[in-house]
Parts: sequence; C-alpha cells; structure tokens
Amino acid sequence: MANRSPSTKKKSTRSKRIRQRYVYWFGDGTADGDRGMKNLLGGKGANLAEMCNLGVPVPPGFTISTDVCTEYNENNRRYPKGLQEEIEASLKRLEKSLGKGFGDTKNPLLLSVRSGARVSMPGMMDTVLNLGLNDETVTALAERSGNERFAWDAYRRFIQMYGDVVMEVKAKAGEHFDPFTIALESLKKRRNVELDTELSADDLKGLVKKYKKIVRERTGREFPVDPMKQLWGAVNAVFLSWENERAVAYRTMHHIPSNWGTAVTVMAMVFGNMGEDSGTGVAFTRDPASGEKRFYGEYLMNAQGEDVVAGIRTPLSIESLAKSSPKAYAQLFKLQKKLEKHYADMQDLEFTIENGRLFMLQCRIGKRTGFAAVRIAVDMVSERLITKEDAIRRIDPEALDQLLAPIFDPDEQKRARREGLVLTKGLNAGPGAATGRIVFDAGRAEQQVKQGKGPVILVRVETSPEDIRGMQAAVGILTARGGMTSHAALVARQMGKVCVAGAGELDIDYRAKRMTVGETKLKEGDWISLDGTTGELYEGQLKTRSSEVLANLFGKRKKKPVKGSVFHAYQQVMKWSDEFRTMKVRTNADQPDQCDTAIAFGAEGIGLCRTEHMFFEESKIESMRKMIVAETPEDREAALAELAPLQRKDFEGIFKSMGTRPVTIRTLDPPLHEFLPTEPRAIRILAADLGISVAKLKLKIESLHELNPMLGNRGCRLGISYPEITKMQARAIFEAACNVAKRTGKKPRPEIMIPLVGTSRELELQERIIRAVAEEVFEKKKLRIPYLLGTMIELPRAALTASEIAKHAEFFSFGTNDLTQTTYGISRDDAGRFIPIYIDEEVFSADPFARLDREGVGRLMKVACREGRESRPGIKLGICGEHGGEPSSIEFCHQLGLEYVSCSPFRVPIARLAAAQAALAKLPRVE
Amino acid sequence: MANRSPSTKKKSTRSKRIRQRYVYWFGDGTADGDRGMKNLLGGKGANLAEMCNLGVPVPPGFTISTDVCTEYNENNRRYPKGLQEEIEASLKRLEKSLGKGFGDTKNPLLLSVRSGARVSMPGMMDTVLNLGLNDETVTALAERSGNERFAWDAYRRFIQMYGDVVMEVKAKAGEHFDPFTIALESLKKRRNVELDTELSADDLKGLVKKYKKIVRERTGREFPVDPMKQLWGAVNAVFLSWENERAVAYRTMHHIPSNWGTAVTVMAMVFGNMGEDSGTGVAFTRDPASGEKRFYGEYLMNAQGEDVVAGIRTPLSIESLAKSSPKAYAQLFKLQKKLEKHYADMQDLEFTIENGRLFMLQCRIGKRTGFAAVRIAVDMVSERLITKEDAIRRIDPEALDQLLAPIFDPDEQKRARREGLVLTKGLNAGPGAATGRIVFDAGRAEQQVKQGKGPVILVRVETSPEDIRGMQAAVGILTARGGMTSHAALVARQMGKVCVAGAGELDIDYRAKRMTVGETKLKEGDWISLDGTTGELYEGQLKTRSSEVLANLFGKRKKKPVKGSVFHAYQQVMKWSDEFRTMKVRTNADQPDQCDTAIAFGAEGIGLCRTEHMFFEESKIESMRKMIVAETPEDREAALAELAPLQRKDFEGIFKSMGTRPVTIRTLDPPLHEFLPTEPRAIRILAADLGISVAKLKLKIESLHELNPMLGNRGCRLGISYPEITKMQARAIFEAACNVAKRTGKKPRPEIMIPLVGTSRELELQERIIRAVAEEVFEKKKLRIPYLLGTMIELPRAALTASEIAKHAEFFSFGTNDLTQTTYGISRDDAGRFIPIYIDEEVFSADPFARLDREGVGRLMKVACREGRESRPGIKLGICGEHGGEPSSIEFCHQLGLEYVSCSPFRVPIARLAAAQAALAKLPRVE
Repeated sequence: MANRSPSTKKKSTRSKRIRQRYVYWFGDGTADGDRGMKNLLGGKGANLAEMCNLGVPVPPGFTISTDVCTEYNENNRRYPKGLQEEIEASLKRLEKSLGKGFGDTKNPLLLSVRSGARVSMPGMMDTVLNLGLNDETVTALAERSGNERFAWDAYRRFIQMYGDVVMEVKAKAGEHFDPFTIALESLKKRRNVELDTELSADDLKGLVKKYKKIVRERTGREFPVDPMKQLWGAVNAVFLSWENERAVAYRTMHHIPSNWGTAVTVMAMVFGNMGEDSGTGVAFTRDPASGEKRFYGEYLMNAQGEDVVAGIRTPLSIESLAKSSPKAYAQLFKLQKKLEKHYADMQDLEFTIENGRLFMLQCRIGKRTGFAAVRIAVDMVSERLITKEDAIRRIDPEALDQLLAPIFDPDEQKRARREGLVLTKGLNAGPGAATGRIVFDAGRAEQQVKQGKGPVILVRVETSPEDIRGMQAAVGILTARGGMTSHAALVARQMGKVCVAGAGELDIDYRAKRMTVGETKLKEGDWISLDGTTGELYEGQLKTRSSEVLANLFGKRKKKPVKGSVFHAYQQVMKWSDEFRTMKVRTNADQPDQCDTAIAFGAEGIGLCRTEHMFFEESKIESMRKMIVAETPEDREAALAELAPLQRKDFEGIFKSMGTRPVTIRTLDPPLHEFLPTEPRAIRILAADLGISVAKLKLKIESLHELNPMLGNRGCRLGISYPEITKMQARAIFEAACNVAKRTGKKPRPEIMIPLVGTSRELELQERIIRAVAEEVFEKKKLRIPYLLGTMIELPRAALTASEIAKHAEFFSFGTNDLTQTTYGISRDDAGRFIPIYIDEEVFSADPFARLDREGVGRLMKVACREGRESRPGIKLGICGEHGGEPSSIEFCHQLGLEYVSCSPFRVPIARLAAAQAALAKLPRVE
Repeated sequence: MANRSPSTKKKSTRSKRIRQRYVYWFGDGTADGDRGMKNLLGGKGANLAEMCNLGVPVPPGFTISTDVCTEYNENNRRYPKGLQEEIEASLKRLEKSLGKGFGDTKNPLLLSVRSGARVSMPGMMDTVLNLGLNDETVTALAERSGNERFAWDAYRRFIQMYGDVVMEVKAKAGEHFDPFTIALESLKKRRNVELDTELSADDLKGLVKKYKKIVRERTGREFPVDPMKQLWGAVNAVFLSWENERAVAYRTMHHIPSNWGTAVTVMAMVFGNMGEDSGTGVAFTRDPASGEKRFYGEYLMNAQGEDVVAGIRTPLSIESLAKSSPKAYAQLFKLQKKLEKHYADMQDLEFTIENGRLFMLQCRIGKRTGFAAVRIAVDMVSERLITKEDAIRRIDPEALDQLLAPIFDPDEQKRARREGLVLTKGLNAGPGAATGRIVFDAGRAEQQVKQGKGPVILVRVETSPEDIRGMQAAVGILTARGGMTSHAALVARQMGKVCVAGAGELDIDYRAKRMTVGETKLKEGDWISLDGTTGELYEGQLKTRSSEVLANLFGKRKKKPVKGSVFHAYQQVMKWSDEFRTMKVRTNADQPDQCDTAIAFGAEGIGLCRTEHMFFEESKIESMRKMIVAETPEDREAALAELAPLQRKDFEGIFKSMGTRPVTIRTLDPPLHEFLPTEPRAIRILAADLGISVAKLKLKIESLHELNPMLGNRGCRLGISYPEITKMQARAIFEAACNVAKRTGKKPRPEIMIPLVGTSRELELQERIIRAVAEEVFEKKKLRIPYLLGTMIELPRAALTASEIAKHAEFFSFGTNDLTQTTYGISRDDAGRFIPIYIDEEVFSADPFARLDREGVGRLMKVACREGRESRPGIKLGICGEHGGEPSSIEFCHQLGLEYVSCSPFRVPIARLAAAQAALAKLPRVE
C-alpha cells in the first residue's frame, strides 16, 4: 500500500552522480548544503547549512550524509570508500577555521556528534557531546578556558554519554539508574549538595576516575583516549542507532521507510557550562501549545543541553534572559524573528551562550498542538506571512479533533502521571477526556444516570447494539477488545463520546462486577478517567473542561467569535476550507440531536441514517422483537404496524432538523438476532411479554444464530426475505416527508439506500416495493416528494457488476467498512489479534479500516465509479464508510470524483479541511 | 447470471417476418414444420411434423406456435390478429383430410388439445381429449363406430377432463378426490364392479348426466355444447397453464425462461378405447433404467392414454403385444427402430391402436438414468449411430454420480414410499444410499463402529472439523442445517460418504439423544436410511448394494471389463474424455487412502491437501492443543516438535501414494479455536492433560472466540503470527519428500500453497521461511527436491493485486469457495436461510457455491489470470474450490485457460467428462 508513501528520489539521484560525495561542510558563513537537502543531510544538517547561509551564528562543522547510513547498514556495517578521507579533510578545515587542533594538547578542538533524519524523530537516536577529551586535552581545556571546574565537568559528561551511547554501559536489570548516575548521586550525597553545579573541580576529577573504572569493569575495556577513535566510535553508534528498537518502532508507527537512513552532524562544541555568563536553552517562535504569538522558551545558565530536559534543575522562562543577558537576548529575539520569517513557519530553536556569545545549534519547524496549528496558520495569513492556501495545506486535519474534544486540565494530568495513576493504554478511539464511575452493564449505566448517580463510564469486553442506550448515557466507553472501527469506537465517534477501545490488559469479571488492570483491582462505582486523545486510562477523578470551540458552537447565546480566539481561528479555517473544497461533506446520523450537532459542524446533508439504531429505543425494541419471533406474515405485519408510527415520528424529527438538505436513509441492515436479548433474565421477560414459553423463545434465538453474522442474513437479504419490513420503512419515510413538507412548507429530500446489494436483481426487487409504496403515499397525501433510490456499494460483487446495478440505482454510496472487510476477508471485530503484527511486519502500512486501501478496495471503487457512470451518466456517487472522515481516504475520494463524503458529526470539520487539501493538491483524477 | 442461458433468437426472427404465421399443419405425409423448429412448435409439435415427413402414421392436425402463447400472456390474454382465421382454415383442412366434420352430427371429428414446450415439462401442463363431443355428436359417434359404450365412455372422459382443466372443477378442501371421480367410484360401487371397462353404455349415459349436473352445480354454468367454444376453451386453458404454479416452479427449478411459452397441438382423435382390438401405450427404444438395447414399454387394451399412467389397471409389458396383436406390434417395432436411427438417440414413444391400426402420438428423446446414459452412448458408438464426440457431448457429467454411489434396491424404495416411511427431504449433498443406526455424537459414532455395533448414521445439527473421525466411521451423515457446500457436505463428498444436509424439519435434542421429524420421534440406535441422491430420509432399514463401477474399480481382483457392462461403458467414456480434454484433473485429498481412491478415479495429482484434517487425528490433536494454548514461543515450539515427526509421516504416506504426481499442500488454514474442545468434559480432560486449571483453559478458549471466524485469524495470518507453525510444516514436507525419494527412487513433486493471502507481502514473508527451511533440509539430506511455491487466490484483494502477488507465487490456485463467500459477502454456512428464497425470486439462477458465478467471482478470476500471467509469464493456474467438480464451472475454467481443476475424489470422473465437453464446445477464451 503506497498511499501517500514518500518518494524515494534518493536512489535515482545517487545513480546519476559519478563520484559520490559523503561529507558536507557548514560554517564561516558558507555551507555546501541548504534547507532543500533534508533527504541527504537530515533535517538538522540541512537547517544548520541554511542558517549558515543566512549568516546566523552557528558553530562550524560538517554533515555525513544519509547515504552513508544506508550503505553502512546494508553493506555489513562497512563504510563506503573515500569516506574516511572526506572526514579527515573536513576535520582539517574545522581545525583551521577555529584555530584549534583535534586532540591538540594546547588548544583542543571538541566536537558534538548528533544524528539527524529526514524527519524529526525526537529522542529516538543518540548524541555525544564534548568529544575529543582525554586526560591531556582536559588539562589544556582547563588552561585555555581558565576554568578547571568547567573542563572536568565537560570530561565527566563526555565519559558518561560516550559510555552509555557507544560503549553501552546501561542500567542492569533490577537497577533503576545507570552506574554513572549512581556514582554521581552518591558523590552528591557524600558532599551533601543538591545540584551538580555545586560540586568542585576536584570532586569532578574523582568522578572521572570513578567513571573510567566503571567503564573498565563493565566492558572489560579502557575508555578510549585517542580522539579519532572516539570520533569513529560515536559516528558508528549514531548510524547503528538508526536500527535500534526504539527507532524501528517509531518509524513503523510513523510510516517512515527504513532506507531513508540518518545523517550524522559533527560540529564544534560550544559550551553553555563555561560559567555564569554561559547557558543553553530551547525556544519556539510562538507558543506551541496555544499558538499565541509570543517568543516562548526555557533556558539554564552554566549548563549543557541535556540539563534543560533532564528536569533536575528547573529551567527559567526566556523572559528572564532579557534581564540577565540583555545583549544575548536581544540577538536571540532578532534571530528567531528572522528565522520564522525566512521559514514562514513557527520554529523550534536550540541555542547556547558561551561566555556571553550566542550560537544557534538547531532550528526546525516546531511541533504544535491542534489549537496552535489552527491559530498560527490563521495568524500568519493575517500577518501576510503565508497565503490562505498555505494555511489550509499545513494544518493536519486530524489535529482539529483536539479543538472539539473536552479536555483534561493538563497540570492535573501531569500530576496523575507522576503519581503512577496511569493504569493502561488502549486505542485512542474517541478523542476527549472523560471521568466517571465504572459500570459494567449498559442497562445499569442508563439507570445510574437516570437516578442522578453521576457520570458513568461504561466498561465492556466489547459493546453491541444492545448497549447503545447505555453508551449514550455514559460519558465514556472503555472496552477490552476491538479496534479503531469496532462497534464501540464507531458509535462513540458518532455520538462524540470519549472512547478507549481494545485495552487488552483489562480483565473484566461481569459477574463479580470487578475488573483487574495489572495489580490494580477496581469495582463498580469506582472512579476512573479516560483520555480518548492518548488512549490512557487513569485511576480516580481527573478534572475535565469543555473545549472552547464546542462551547461557542453550542453555547446558548451565539457570540461573534473574538479575533485571536481558538474559535475565531477554527471558523476562519472552516471558511477557507469551504472556499477551496469541491466535495460536499455529509454526516452519518440517525437522531435529530445528532443532526443538529452535525449541521453546527457544517454538514450539508446526511450520508447515512442507520434505521436500526432507532429500533433499539425502549419504545420500539419490544415491537421489533415481536416482529422477529413472528411465526406468520400476519403476526409480522401486526408487529410492524406497531412500529410504523414510531418510525415515521423518527423520520419526521430528522427531516425537520435537516430541512431541505438531502437525507440518505438506509433500510434495515443488521442480522435480526442482534435485536434479541441474550441474558437469561431479559429472555424470561421477553417470553412473558410475548406470551410464549422461554424454551420456544430460546429456540427461536438459537435458530437465528449465525456462524458468521457479518456474512449472514442481513442487509437487503432481510428486505427480500421479509418484504413487509421494507414496505413499512418506505411508508414511514414517505409519510414523514409529506407530513414535514405540509407542516414546514419545505420539502425534505429523502434518498433511500438499499444495503448489502450484490446483484442488480436484489435492488430491482426492493426498488419495486419502495416505488409502489411511494406512489400510494403520494396519492393519499396529495403531494409528491422528489426522492432518490440507490444502493450501498459494499460488496466486491456490487462493484464488479456496478454497470447492471446502476440501471436501478440513482446513486451509489460506498460502504467502505464492509467493502474493506470483504475485499480483505477480514472481520474488523476480530482483526485486533493480528493487525498489530501486520503493521509490525509491514504487511499493512496502516490499518485498512482506518485508511482506505487504494490498491484493492480502491480499485473496486474505481471500477464501480467508471462502470456506474457509463451505465447511468451523472449517477450520484458518495462514501459513507468510516473512511469518509479520514484525510488520506478523502483525498482518494476526491481523485475518484465523488460528489460527497459522509462521516460522523464530530469528524465533519476534519473532512471539510481534508477535502480542501485534496482540492488544493491538484492530484490526477483516478479513472 | 446468464451462464449457459439459452438463446432467445425468437424475437429477432419474429421481427424479420412481415406477416406472422401462427398455425402449422401436419398430416397426410406432409408437414409445415420439422424437428428443427422446436422453439416455435414445441417439442411435441416439431416431432409430430418430423414423423409426418418421415411417413410415420400420425393422426393429422396442426400446431399453434409458442409465439401465440407469449403474445397471449404478455398482451392481457388477447390473441394476435389473424389467429382465428388460421385455426379455422386448418380445421377445414383437417375435416377434409379425414372426411369428418367438427360438430357434425353424422360423422363428427373429435380432437385432442395438448401442450408442448420447447423442452419437455412432464405433467406440468394440461391436455384435453375427445373434444367435439356433445349430446348429438355422441350419438353419431356411437352409430359410426357401432360401439355405443365406447362413444359414451369418450364423452364422460371428455366432460371430466374439460371440467377439470378448462372449467376448473377440482376437489374442494377436505375432499380427497374431484367430484367426477367420486361419482364414478360411487357408481362402480353400486354396480359392484372394479374396472370402469365393466360399466355398461347405460351406466355411462347416467354418468354423463351426473357429470353435467356437477359442472352446473360447481360452476353455475352449463357444460358447453358448441364444439368451437370447446376448442377455444381448451386452447385458452393450455396457454394459461404455462403460468400455473406447478409450471412456474418447474421452470424456475430448471432455469427455463418464461418467455419461451408453450405451443398447442390440436390433433384428430384416435381411440384406444374402441374395444379389445384397440389400445394405447408408451415405449422406449432402449431400457431407460439400465440402457440395455431392448424395446421396452407398457400398454393397455381398450383404454385411453391417461389409463396407462393412472395405475388403476396394471399395464402389460410390450412383449405380450407381439402375441395379442402381432401385426400392430411388428409395425410398432419397425417404427421404433426407424425413429431411433433417424434421431440417433433413444426415443420415448406414445402410440395408440385403433381397431388394429397403429398411430404414433408422440416421440421424443427419452429421459434416462446415469447408468443408461453411459451405456447407450457407448453402445451407439459401437453401432456407428453416433461419434465418440457425440457420446461425450450427450452424457450429463453429473449423471456419473449414480454409477459410483451405492444404491438402494429400487423396489424396496418404492415400498417404503408407499408405506409413508419417507420422513423428510433435505439437500442431496452426498449421493448414494446408506442405512444405519442413529448416533448424535461423533465420538460415539466411532466407538459404536469400533465395538461392532453395526453401521451408524451421524445425525448433527451441523458438523465441525471435530466430527471428522465420527464422519469417517459413519455410513451416512444427516444434518439439520447447512447447504450443499457446508462442512458436512464437503467432507462427505470428499470421503464419498452419503450425506443429506440441511434437513430443516429435524428437531434434534442432543441431551436427550432424540430427534423429532414431523410426528415421528426417533432416538439413538433407531434405524434410518438416507438416499443421498434424492435427499430423502426413510424410517427403518432399506437394503443397499454397492455400485458395479465401484465394485470393479476397487474389487480385489481386477477383471477386464465385460463388454456391455456398466463398468465397461464407464471405462470407455473416461478413455474418450481423456482423449478430448485439455485440462488436467486433480483431486482434493489429505490421506493416503483418499489418494488411492482418487488415482483409481483418474486423478493426475493433488490440487488441495488440507493439512488441518491431519491434526484432528487422535495421535495429533493433543499436541496441537498444547501448541495452541502455549503461552510462550518456547512452549509452542516444544508442542510443534511433537507434531513434526507425525506430520512428516503423513506427508510420506501421501507422497508414496502419489508417486511423481504433483501434490499441492496447503499450510494450516482454519482458526485455531476449531481445534479446541467445546464440551465441558473434553475441556476438563484437556486441562488435566495440559496441567492447567479448567478456568485458565476456558479463558484461553474464550480468548480465541471470534465473531466471524471465516474472516478472522486464519490462513496465512496464523503462519505470520506464529512463523514456527509454517516452519514445522515446511520441514515436515521437505523431509518427507527427501525420505520418500531415497526409499522409492522417485522424487515427489510438492507444491506448497499459502492460504488466504490478500497482499503480496504476506506471501513474501511466508516464502522466506519456507525457502530457508527447504535449503536447510536439502543440505542436511544431501538431496534437492524440485518444488513450487504458490498461493490460493481466495480473496477479492488477492485477485485485484495478482500482479504483485505473482512476483512471489509460482502458481495460483483459485479457492472459489472462499472467493465466492467474500465476493458476495455470504457465509456458505449461514446461507441456507435465504438462498432458497433467492432462487425463487430469481436473484440467483443457481446456488453460487455450487455453480461458479461468472459475472462477479469469474471476473475476479479473469483479472487474476490476466495480470498474474503478465507479471509472471507461464504461471501455473488451477482451481481447488468445490466448483472444480461442477460441469458449468469446469467449462468456465477451460475458457480461462487453467491448467487443471481439482475436486473431491468421487467427482474426478465427472470433472474428466466435463473437461472433455468443455474442450469439444470450442468456446471462446475468456481474457
């Protein structure tokens, strides 16, 4: 699956070059590379070169290209010929540039060795600082700097990092820290100090001795004293770290091909730990959390890079730098403005101040929250830094989720993590934050909420349609089984509920109303908190708050959005999206309140109204069950007669909400047994209600049991086996449409959709019934409602015979959930067991139920679009599977020329943005 | 689905003609039609014309074409213009030819009015004899014939038939007979006679009076006296009968389009009831049951057609006619020889002798059993009546089933039917006859047989792989659920077991070891008999005998086939089939004895060896279960190590049986939970064996439960999740091949097949494992075995990405069972509920699991063949789904250019013949 798979242009470039070049210089205001060469130099190398070209102060150095990494790892860990010479030449140039010597005992050159891949992989690979120190050069460093303590601090840091990264001296099993940290801490304790800056030069000398002893004991080797050996060791280690477990896992997760490789940047050291006029820090040109336009950062004086992150000393806010080092701050402030303007995007910067002199060590496009992404993009447009098109292109549509979901108070969440209250992690199936009391049963969830016993979280092994009302009552849903498109996840997203699905570590005992997670035992009524954005499950109550966008969209008093607010930015992005996109966006909804929500989110119609959800409501389930267990057509029709007025009322509600927007209604789809109870008690009650024996009812339930219900008696197979069901539904739709038209003066636009069609004859049979009912109702009501009649394309055979099917279908709606299931032969409910393995083994580049498979499923869609159009020019085409809310899939739908995508209400904004991006990408039409 | 759909040339012919002709004359040695005009004149009309042209004595008459029927039924029951004139003209010609007048009171012409469709639809439509009689013409008939009794007998027959067919005087609800029969029987009782021939002319006069009163009372109308009115009434009735329920049902069953229509033949009456020198009969030119070359028939003197069939008087064998009417017999004998020679096929004849003079009323190609079909075809080749090609073309391959299956003694079966011992009817899933004692549990079946408690029939709601050994032990399998390709049916056919599947009326109570069918209650140990050829279930023991072909193929002493025997004919047909066919025929087998059977049937290799069946054997199931519940890869490998030598032994047995024939072995396919026990007792035993708690084992079984196992963790998904399984299987295959090669000097030809591949990467991962194991084994054994590695194409996605998959596959084998399931989204195990409705509603023209769907599934096969070949020229293509044994599907496979089909051993002969027919048909290649 090559969806959006990044190009691998490298190879062709390589083959064109006659003599390969491996090492690229930067420094002294000139560089061999620039920001366009990320593929070869990695993000870090390319941006260092770019900054150099811009005249930004950067310590000089050179970058070893990603090609070397690839060749090294593919060629049995042997370096390409000529590399050594190039490195030695660059090193000479560096020595000359700085007037220092690598390993020189008078004026030693020290280096940092850092990794840098094409895209940022934070924390995945290794870095070595202060390289080039040994017992002799450390003395020279002390003398030259006039700061003995600094020199030995740099030396002990070097041994610690090199020991860890290159020589692999790590914490042993059972140890909580590596031996270097243990030695450092024990020394601090002995000296009775808190910070390592409080240790004296002599302390550090002793520590270096101790460190070298550790290396000897742990590795059986001496710590290398030859700087060139040190350098090669570090370069090896960085290249090898491309293949370490963390890095491989990260690449898999982010679909990064392993043949991209990492570059290695070797740079002259500058020192933030040279005293109180030195320091180091990180900064963002805008607030990466809120997007606010303010210079934002943290720093530490007398420190090296890792200290800022380590959290032992609390870093200071960047504003205070203005007071302590006004000159450096002024320079830094000017530089960050320059870099943001140059890159026309928010930058993430690393800097070091050495004896008051500022150096930039890194710049890159800053990661940001969804909030920040939207706000920054909108602000930059009004600042004329970027165009509207740029703004739309650059926001990850998925990030909008964050703007809509209720959120946990971030501080509270930090606290909980610190206190070890994170119990487990499942799939982040429904974004948002929810806190409530555990309930293991859907009926009980409803009851608890009705009785005002506070918010509940429904915890199930997996959910079924029976649980719908309980899910509606709950603030969050937690399941032990099922994937991103499991019943729980699907319904939760449609309802906008927080959901963590497939948390495999849960051990649920329904009978005892208890569950175990690891060591923790919880029972009904206990408080838990779900973060549906991260998939985390917390013990106890975490405070949540409603997001700003939701508060504004659904607040009672509509206020004009305040400029600079998240809501204003959201509105702006949506407005621009609507300008650019050519596909319409509909929603999957089956209740008036869902319709209202979807309209607020910008839905232009309903693409999928599942009629079965309506039947699970208390008022209907009983008649539904009577209908199912009916022995004769007469009994069945009697039960259907009870349902008819209720169903008509449902449709009236929906038509009223949707006005003249199109409403696609799917006739009954799921296997009938889903409507029957499974619990002995519920069976007893139903039997009594129906006036039949429990044994007989059980027999009926048993007779409806199917080995593979997904492939069983469902969809239009029901409507063909029991035409009276289709008749009742058609009548309810047309009567409701007529009634609403009379009441409101606006004619609803029903589009009736037949599910699970595999042959044109099935559609023909259902069409006959529906058109006859329509004529009858229109006659009686003395009113005609224009309507469409079409079908889902959700079986391979439907796509393959689309030409025949189109003769009876005024529209096709691709049901890509089922189409993916049947094309792959994978049940999405059972896929949880092997999909993770398939992603690890690179069988899938993504879960095909989340991201549309273009080669297989997409090919069938292509066939159906082409042949459907040939057979019925102008046939209306849309999609109503879950993929309709997923950006890559939306792009493909745009390429197919679909008229609309349809998705759950809370994904409508995402779909609007993704559709705009697809239109802006100007990709070739798929035909 | 238009597979083999008959051409509808009629319309185009019709539009070409300027003036439509509706009525076609035959008689006086000349005719407007001939045997080539069946589409227009029906089979009866065309053959009467042909006989006329041949000079065969036929009563003159005319045929109203099928066009009239179509127009009549399509055009609101109005006849086309000009029809009346044509009929009147023909009637005039008839009167002139015979010198009689229609309605003439001196010398009346009497007519028969009969239906006749393009293909014979026996008993489906209506006939009226003796038309033209009324109170006046009857007197004339009596005078002219000098036989008053005959005339009144004809009259009462006429009123009875016309009353029934045209005026619809039928038995009312609660009555066992129609009122005419009741009146006749009560008269016979009063007269104290047994046969109607014993009634006097006066008796019959009284009866006619009574009959007319019945008509008046029942219909409120007088019986029509005007012969022309009678004629139109009868013609109407025949055309209307094309649309009666019986006829529609028959057409649906036999895929006959309703727009074919029926013709009506109006013919002068000749009378077999004119006295003791008159008579009527039916005859076959050869024995339709055995195929023996002997004139075969039955007749009655002084009788009309319907008497022969009615069974009140016992008809006489045709030989006795030679004695009673030597002249007529001699003429008949000569004529039947002439007609058989002319048609070059066995004929079914109707004749009447009127006062010693012979008339032929009908001739048509005679229906025959499978035995007769084979024998007649072979005999006719040696008689030089037809060519070998004709012989091959004319035998329905399915009919060969009868030659192979054990059979019930036909007399015994008749008796059982008469005595009401037929309990119900299911699907004829495994042909043959079996009698045994009911057992409801597979384990118990095995045990009973081991203990010599006689033959058993395994009765299950449905079977599962756990039941395999019980099925092997049983003589027959009866299930309440499941279709023609359910587990029970599939395994039964592979084993050659008798099977009746999906007998929905069975109500089985496993606990009480009882079942109920309608009113009959049966318990374990009771005798039942299964006719797998008809699907009938009998109470009690019916005698069976082994078929001649099987007795000869598998008898201990191989005898040269006796010429004229069924076995000889079978051998001849198989030899000719092999001459003509271009596709190879392989078998689906997984045990050495199945291999031997298949080879005897002519299999040229194994197309599908399911390795999972092996694991259900007692020696292996325990290790298999250990493997499944293993918590660590180490435990799993330990369990696999136990299985390895056993599996190797299995393969050795198969390779030894198959010699140098190719053997396609599929790696493990079914979901693992199928191997685990489901009964509490079995679970307890297994838990004890494994040394784990029952609770833990139950949890494990529960965790393997899948909602849709068909789409779950199975096929190559297992081999990718647990590579050690694939490794073990590959090792067993290669070691076995090497061992057998060393022992026998012949190198086996393994072809390893990976199931359920949906992406090329899956195949690539499994390929790596297998090729590595192969190299390792060959190295160790110092021997190389040439082998192929390929995949099933059984998922739509596999077909759609065949081009990529072919890069790793040396062959494709179409698994059309699963491909049909996923293309249609239908589980074959659950389809029983709606497939009958779908066939009734003409959604399916045939069960797609039995006959390959060319539009959908076939299109995917076409894509896979084309793109697979483009990607890997010369790729080997075959089929191993159940369709590989079904003639229409085999034809399609031939058109796709597959190298082989593979089917269960007992279908190999059918496939050989069908493949020959496909080759002879010279159909265009599907590309």
